[in-house]
Amino acid sequence: MHILIIGAAGMVGRKLTMALLSAGAVGADPIDKITLADVVAPDTPVSAIPCNSHATDLSVPGAAAKLVADRPDVVFHLAAIVSGEAEADFEKGYAINLDGTRFLLEAIRQQGMNEPYCPRLVFTSSIAVFGEPLPPAIPDDMAHTPLTSYGTQKAICELLLADYSRRGFVDGIGIRLPTIAVRPGKPNKAASGFFSGIIREPLNGMEAVLPVDESVRHWFASPRAAIGFLLQAAALDTAPLGQRRTLTMPGLSATIAEEIAALERFGGVAATRLIRREPDETIARIVAGWPQNFDARRALDLGFVAEASFDDIVRAHIEDELGGRVAPT
Amino acid sequence: MHILIIGAAGMVGRKLTMALLSAGAVGADPIDKITLADVVAPDTPVSAIPCNSHATDLSVPGAAAKLVADRPDVVFHLAAIVSGEAEADFEKGYAINLDGTRFLLEAIRQQGMNEPYCPRLVFTSSIAVFGEPLPPAIPDDMAHTPLTSYGTQKAICELLLADYSRRGFVDGIGIRLPTIAVRPGKPNKAASGFFSGIIREPLNGMEAVLPVDESVRHWFASPRAAIGFLLQAAALDTAPLGQRRTLTMPGLSATIAEEIAALERFGGVAATRLIRREPDETIARIVAGWPQNFDARRALDLGFVAEASFDDIVRAHIEDELGGRVAPT
Repeated sequence: MHILIIGAAGMVGRKLTMALLSAGAVGADPIDKITLADVVAPDTPVSAIPCNSHATDLSVPGAAAKLVADRPDVVFHLAAIVSGEAEADFEKGYAINLDGTRFLLEAIRQQGMNEPYCPRLVFTSSIAVFGEPLPPAIPDDMAHTPLTSYGTQKAICELLLADYSRRGFVDGIGIRLPTIAVRPGKPNKAASGFFSGIIREPLNGMEAVLPVDESVRHWFASPRAAIGFLLQAAALDTAPLGQRRTLTMPGLSATIAEEIAALERFGGVAATRLIRREPDETIARIVAGWPQNFDARRALDLGFVAEASFDDIVRAHIEDELGGRVAPT
Repeated sequence: MHILIIGAAGMVGRKLTMALLSAGAVGADPIDKITLADVVAPDTPVSAIPCNSHATDLSVPGAAAKLVADRPDVVFHLAAIVSGEAEADFEKGYAINLDGTRFLLEAIRQQGMNEPYCPRLVFTSSIAVFGEPLPPAIPDDMAHTPLTSYGTQKAICELLLADYSRRGFVDGIGIRLPTIAVRPGKPNKAASGFFSGIIREPLNGMEAVLPVDESVRHWFASPRAAIGFLLQAAALDTAPLGQRRTLTMPGLSATIAEEIAALERFGGVAATRLIRREPDETIARIVAGWPQNFDARRALDLGFVAEASFDDIVRAHIEDELGGRVAPT
């Protein structure tokens, strides 16, 4: 089968590409071609399976039609302007996150007009579709009250995905990912960056800043778990989803204190001493509005699995990013 | 103040126009101009208040910009392709119900770019944003799981209205109307048509068909109540709405048996004998998927009021459409 990954140059896209090449199949179906697309052309990995790469701006009319012209069997749509940028640049957020997704859905529908075509479309949504007032554990049937333009755009795409699927134009499944930790790479300026930073930097012998209290609770999954969700969504029987095509993925609800305790078990007290407390009112206020826990019943019942403890998350990071070894501190 | 009504040629639009002209004000603010727009130019009523009329297709780029070029203070957006047509013509439904609304929101935002502009926008949404599984009384915080393209489009517009309002581009309020009964005029082929027909036709000495069982329960408000909702929404303080900008309007949950009992009280047994039972499996199945009752707590707390009995609904019809008199039967 032929796989298309849109947003393939990002962290999740690159890991997904490698996982697909390594598995060689989606479920029981062997992969014979992978097409990678992003706003900058993704690197093409060396592989026995042919991979080609395209620089594509999905928000440009006609771009999506080119990507689906050779009728990929599975499309992963990971491309998005992130929350902060979508809030800062109203037009760009709507252009990429809403119009881009709608162009893709329309291009797939148009492809099916002369000859039947109904590919699996795996769409990454976000827990940002939910907003205050938030219950202690957000259930699957919680109403969407996004508090950002990003969350609004994702909620709209979930509705479009459901309607296009109901009409038989696409076989869509949306997955709402937890906050990904430990995110590999350099520190970034995202308000959520410290959740990964306070593990990643100390395990690398470097200092990390903690801007919030240790009692702060949040919702996590490892990059490895996220890739597992995507692979499972690509192969899942979508019939049991009915009209509700988007699932909240399982995750781990954990506090910063639990993160730090896990860090100590792997990196020792020396690692935890590299965390510098530097309270930041602005970040604390932003984080206070974020979901802390979910009851992801539907996804759990369908067999999606996340980590059970922060130790599992730190272990996945050490195995996948650090070659199984922690830097001496 | 200057009022713009988009979708002014429809039943609700015409009644709203007359109500505004009669009131001469929105809340405490006198009206000095009304602009009427629809896909066919609405009739211009004779009035002391200047009224002008435009034929406008909101789904054509640039059309919305012309409508808001002279910066109306209050915009009523009632224009929509109805449920059946949006299901039959996928592209037309999305063009009018989604793109049309988004063009309007964008035109308002663009108007505000050089000189501040943030009009009140009253948008008519629909209870079609809700789908199965439905609880016995649908609460305000029920998740949107529309089962039609029409419901999907309305749910998306609710999200856009909330985001554009949050960003300060418009002062939006959405209202989800109950099924309007008794709808004046000729019988139509809408699946819901019989709810009005079994009152309207017999009171006019004509036969009406009832395709479902008398135990069927549904959610109603009179045209008079609907106009009241729109006028109140135009003048409401929107601050208490927070980010949840759309309200389920109050209504009356009543069975067909209650409808017929009310008909008998106004038209006698002779009127009820004009109802011909003609069970229709298709219509029965469609109606079985519709909401039967709502707990419209937020709107009730804000002072929105609907009828308390079907007698009130029949009385409103007789007063407003039949000059207070029932035809002899």
